[in-house]
Amino acid sequence: MSAANTAPVPATVSAESPAPVGDHPFDEAIRLEPLGDRHFAGATHPEYWNQVGPFGGITAALMLQSVMQQPDRLGDPLSLTVNYAAPVREGEFRIETKLVRSNRTTQHWSMELVQGEGAGREIAISAIAVCAIRRDTWRLTEASAPPAPPPENCHRVRGRTDLPWLAHYDMRYVRGRPMHENEDSVTHLWVGDLPHRTLDFPSLAAICDVFFPRLYLRRPKFVPIGTVSLNVYFHCGAEALAANGARHVLASAHGQVVSAGFFDQQGQIWSQDHDLLATTHQIVWFKE
Amino acid sequence: MSAANTAPVPATVSAESPAPVGDHPFDEAIRLEPLGDRHFAGATHPEYWNQVGPFGGITAALMLQSVMQQPDRLGDPLSLTVNYAAPVREGEFRIETKLVRSNRTTQHWSMELVQGEGAGREIAISAIAVCAIRRDTWRLTEASAPPAPPPENCHRVRGRTDLPWLAHYDMRYVRGRPMHENEDSVTHLWVGDLPHRTLDFPSLAAICDVFFPRLYLRRPKFVPIGTVSLNVYFHCGAEALAANGARHVLASAHGQVVSAGFFDQQGQIWSQDHDLLATTHQIVWFKE
Repeated sequence: MSAANTAPVPATVSAESPAPVGDHPFDEAIRLEPLGDRHFAGATHPEYWNQVGPFGGITAALMLQSVMQQPDRLGDPLSLTVNYAAPVREGEFRIETKLVRSNRTTQHWSMELVQGEGAGREIAISAIAVCAIRRDTWRLTEASAPPAPPPENCHRVRGRTDLPWLAHYDMRYVRGRPMHENEDSVTHLWVGDLPHRTLDFPSLAAICDVFFPRLYLRRPKFVPIGTVSLNVYFHCGAEALAANGARHVLASAHGQVVSAGFFDQQGQIWSQDHDLLATTHQIVWFKE
Repeated sequence: MSAANTAPVPATVSAESPAPVGDHPFDEAIRLEPLGDRHFAGATHPEYWNQVGPFGGITAALMLQSVMQQPDRLGDPLSLTVNYAAPVREGEFRIETKLVRSNRTTQHWSMELVQGEGAGREIAISAIAVCAIRRDTWRLTEASAPPAPPPENCHRVRGRTDLPWLAHYDMRYVRGRPMHENEDSVTHLWVGDLPHRTLDFPSLAAICDVFFPRLYLRRPKFVPIGTVSLNVYFHCGAEALAANGARHVLASAHGQVVSAGFFDQQGQIWSQDHDLLATTHQIVWFKE
């Protein structure tokens, strides 16, 4: 989540063609080079920069990507928690991962994003994740997708042009107007990568963090904010993501409480086929 | 969360007097002996045993307690994520903690519960947490406490008597009947420690896991279940917990989706003064 004001822009940009696979700026941004010993080298990407650090969603995607790249990974992501301990500084970083435990159907990982060497070594991000083999079982979706006209009938809202990452998401708001005193913080929007890109687990993790700060929907006053902890539960397999392809997903979020310098957010990400792809929660610091 | 059927019992047990401070079985169950180097020794407690391992809530409380006991802890808990990698075996364990990063107002921790030595060393629990100094800021509670008659007017439901931990919670159901085909999974209940005990962060973390498996409220068929990951956001300071004292809290939970061998749950814990003390989420494995 990142502070950003909105301004409507023409929707024509969404007609861009999909970028060739692997050549998308998102793929460049989550590129990790194996260093051995389950460590990886990466670097911040200028196109996913926010204000004082990378877009939190790209950092979440990177932490997950460090698990996706493990040759002995079991199944697909089930759960991801990312704790933002400090801003990631511009430039190179390492992600140091550990296989905590491998069971028959679940596998547990921990990951840290590290910058600096020796006495200057600092952990900026601390994360844990679970992968799992999904099975065909009884299914029930108790939640329901929010009502929304198709994305092509919704107006694209382009955020602040000084925040590079916002240029990489096509966001079409259905409900919830930031920087206004709304009666609640409920927001629905269609969102997709720009250029278009087929959905996968890292991009879905990133999309879980595209929402405006809930605080801005109840109190129209700009203050610095920063996500402290982000949680994602994945409710689908890779084939459901591939089935959605490069089409927009419907994202919904609301907050429950603002208190003592922090506020929460919970959200859902729905496919165009009404599959609940992911649920997400975060707790966010704000400056009074 | 733990599988447990319900059977009504007389409410008289709730009239017990509070146990002397530190002498409560909960305090015994979360007792940790410092071993130096931020490591702690503990042991499973028979009174908080579930079926094949300890009650998941007592494990969450233990992981948090390993942070509470740090002499250089900054502020109070803000966020806790506990990943259950394997059942904790009966007997002794160590909790190995690491101070990931200490900032001006937030502090990041990682914790692992370990059993066995040498080649037999295994991590059963992997967790991360954030502590924070709370400040007096603008406040807003968008969520609202569910309607409920006072706890003394609600009937106590005592779960399976073969699960020891259930004897340590006074649960009075307001809405949601497990092992029935409910039209939704929404549950409200009053819950308090038995014997009565003043609420604190570890006991609040444990209470976040007392809910019946959501699956049992939609499909009345007993199957083994196990929490894979539990997340708690704390929205109050220590003084709000002390203000609630040993009175019951109002706990509410519902599920969003059951899919491919897993289901989710989200919940809220309210004080009797209508403060939202904590919000919680978990993802749970089930056997078809």
